[in-house]
Amino acid sequence: MKGDNAMGAKVITIEQNILKKNEIAARENRELFRKHSVLAVNLLSSPGSGKTTLLVKTADYLKKNLSVAVAVGDLQTEVDAERIHQAGVPVVQINTGTACHLDAAMVQKSFSHIELEKTDILFIENVGNLVCPATFDLGEYRKVVLLSTAEGEEKPLKYPPIFQTADCICINKIDLLPFIDFNIVKCRENLHKTCPQALTFEFSCKTGDGLQNWCDWLMHQWKVLQDEG
Amino acid sequence: MKGDNAMGAKVITIEQNILKKNEIAARENRELFRKHSVLAVNLLSSPGSGKTTLLVKTADYLKKNLSVAVAVGDLQTEVDAERIHQAGVPVVQINTGTACHLDAAMVQKSFSHIELEKTDILFIENVGNLVCPATFDLGEYRKVVLLSTAEGEEKPLKYPPIFQTADCICINKIDLLPFIDFNIVKCRENLHKTCPQALTFEFSCKTGDGLQNWCDWLMHQWKVLQDEG
Repeated sequence: MKGDNAMGAKVITIEQNILKKNEIAARENRELFRKHSVLAVNLLSSPGSGKTTLLVKTADYLKKNLSVAVAVGDLQTEVDAERIHQAGVPVVQINTGTACHLDAAMVQKSFSHIELEKTDILFIENVGNLVCPATFDLGEYRKVVLLSTAEGEEKPLKYPPIFQTADCICINKIDLLPFIDFNIVKCRENLHKTCPQALTFEFSCKTGDGLQNWCDWLMHQWKVLQDEG
Repeated sequence: MKGDNAMGAKVITIEQNILKKNEIAARENRELFRKHSVLAVNLLSSPGSGKTTLLVKTADYLKKNLSVAVAVGDLQTEVDAERIHQAGVPVVQINTGTACHLDAAMVQKSFSHIELEKTDILFIENVGNLVCPATFDLGEYRKVVLLSTAEGEEKPLKYPPIFQTADCICINKIDLLPFIDFNIVKCRENLHKTCPQALTFEFSCKTGDGLQNWCDWLMHQWKVLQDEG
């Protein structure tokens, strides 16, 4: 939220305080993840890009080698947690009420329901929102933005902050390419312009095409983290 | 944004001040729209649901009978305004920077670029976000939420506030139904549960199927407004 005129300075101060408080909680989370050698991945996207489906499929790919857990944020319902639970993955639902993003303290509260010492990868599925979650560090090791082909190729240009802070961008629903006006070459160009620092994967959670590369990258990130530890 | 503990009360006060200030600007907008008999429509959705395409198509349907103008909100770029301008529709782009929604004052500033006295329908295309814009009245006569089939049928349950304040819900991209796992019957049920007050339209902006009903509704809303005036 932004105010102007007389209220502006007060709003900015409050925002700075909130972000500073978040930073402290994020640092605590990061230390805890490191202590338990947990690869924490903050997964962000618009509503309906396929975050939950991706996590169900990814957990299935990784389960032979790694133990996966999920903390999932939504304004309301336990629909996503239920789907993940059905897939046999330990999951905790965080309901934010009207809040438009997860913050580090909310994630911290979920730890009482997750056995971090038995977890290799913790996915934190953020609230579906391509703006606000960009500002809140959760203490994650890697930040991943998911973009669905159905959303259009110009999203990185129109919502740059979230893309600019990402380690990795995943383009999902490539199975829809024959049926929609999505220019994937243009999308790659836009990603390269907006977030040249980020690795890109392209896949379909529905068909499974391309998911192996994404899972290999996660495995590699987990190994890097173990070597660092 | 929500804070807790000591900061909580201060955050809530600031939020209340911002909303009160917005309410005043919204009331001014509403009076101005009424003075000029302008049907103002606040159009909200996730990123990539097809707001801009819908406006281009709708303006084309309505142009024989009504004069349409658009104010379009985005964090950055003039991509959307450019597309609308290419279609021959008067348009003003509002760039919000990092702000996650339009507020009434931002819309007010755009009036210097719109000839309200020559406008029958003003569409205000909000920032793509299914959470934050729900809180901000822009002074509109009707609030419309667009939902794409690609986003999944459970969105009304997971993001209720925005649906609960809508006059009308449009389900877009019905041409994709044969290619995706979207249960339209379940979606209708979820909408009925979450927002029984809202009218629902189902269409494809790509094929044009169903758009006539939506445009007829807009025409009717415009006539109701003229009768009220």
